[in-house]
Amino acid sequence: MSGYTESMRNLIEEFAKMPGIGPKTAERLAFYILKTNRETAGALARAIVRIKEATRFCAVCNNLSEQDRCDICRDQKRDTSVICVVENPEDIASIEKTGSFQGIYHVLLGTLSPLNGVGPDDLKIKDLIARLRNGAAKEVIIATNPDTEGEATALYLIRLIKPLGIKVTRIASGIPMGTNLEYIDQASLIKSIEGRHQV
Amino acid sequence: MSGYTESMRNLIEEFAKMPGIGPKTAERLAFYILKTNRETAGALARAIVRIKEATRFCAVCNNLSEQDRCDICRDQKRDTSVICVVENPEDIASIEKTGSFQGIYHVLLGTLSPLNGVGPDDLKIKDLIARLRNGAAKEVIIATNPDTEGEATALYLIRLIKPLGIKVTRIASGIPMGTNLEYIDQASLIKSIEGRHQV
Repeated sequence: MSGYTESMRNLIEEFAKMPGIGPKTAERLAFYILKTNRETAGALARAIVRIKEATRFCAVCNNLSEQDRCDICRDQKRDTSVICVVENPEDIASIEKTGSFQGIYHVLLGTLSPLNGVGPDDLKIKDLIARLRNGAAKEVIIATNPDTEGEATALYLIRLIKPLGIKVTRIASGIPMGTNLEYIDQASLIKSIEGRHQV
Repeated sequence: MSGYTESMRNLIEEFAKMPGIGPKTAERLAFYILKTNRETAGALARAIVRIKEATRFCAVCNNLSEQDRCDICRDQKRDTSVICVVENPEDIASIEKTGSFQGIYHVLLGTLSPLNGVGPDDLKIKDLIARLRNGAAKEVIIATNPDTEGEATALYLIRLIKPLGIKVTRIASGIPMGTNLEYIDQASLIKSIEGRHQV
């Protein structure tokens, strides 16, 4: 990277560390920072520093939060009788965007993954069981991803929660809306047939 | 973007201001910053602030520089008898990467663009002529882009420099290496035929 100043090389390297940002994109971003006004660049730098200082996990559900309890747990209008269990805080954001869920959440902060040495004690499973024992939950929706690790985690949780006498449900898998049967993978098609419902 | 904390929304917004970064990528980058260690995030923030403070234009050639004169102008081993004229500092970086040019540069900081109100006085053309009058240059390579504005700028410069008795050359246009004649645009193919050379 000769032809660049040291601070330019440095910024390109820092950008290139980010996921999905190759050397070309890192260069483009660095030139954008170089050319933008000092205010915009400063705002980005401050936002990066601030998120590290301001963000922690919600004491109740492990969602991202800037306070002891997250926005959702503090919201009086949410239905505390339904808890949706997700792998990561990102998943909460995805579900919230749909606007189709009014209950509360519990974030496991990962999935069971024996190969990577992640067991039940490494996830927020004990906290979930404690919440269910002491709380008002009538239904638990297991919304881990429909992949190998997410499915294994779901099975583990179902076995753990059912004895508590709480209704356990699993989000539906199948053919995504707008997709053609012809192009869908076999596993999704099987799920879609298994999960058929009367109309 | 409910489901996100305020600092998270803020960081996503700042990332999304960058060119080619859509909302999805901005989210991914923000989550990366959130999950990475404080040191990595701090290094990125510092690199952003630093480049705005440390970088200016070389007093001789208008390349990016952290000192009065850029690395290339200070390099005693460069051949000062050949000046390559480019539109932007990015172009220097591109040419330097090839390792095929040992001369020095002159950055115009733009192209002639009457439609956008950019005339000769808005570019570093006077500086170039002054350098040529006072310097040791024997050849000027016009390496503006082979598009409408770059071509117009090249023509303007050629007319200006020729009377000084200095050799003026233009970088070759044609079919990119590895490309098939079948897939190349007509303008490049015409340039390629016009620019044919005896072998």
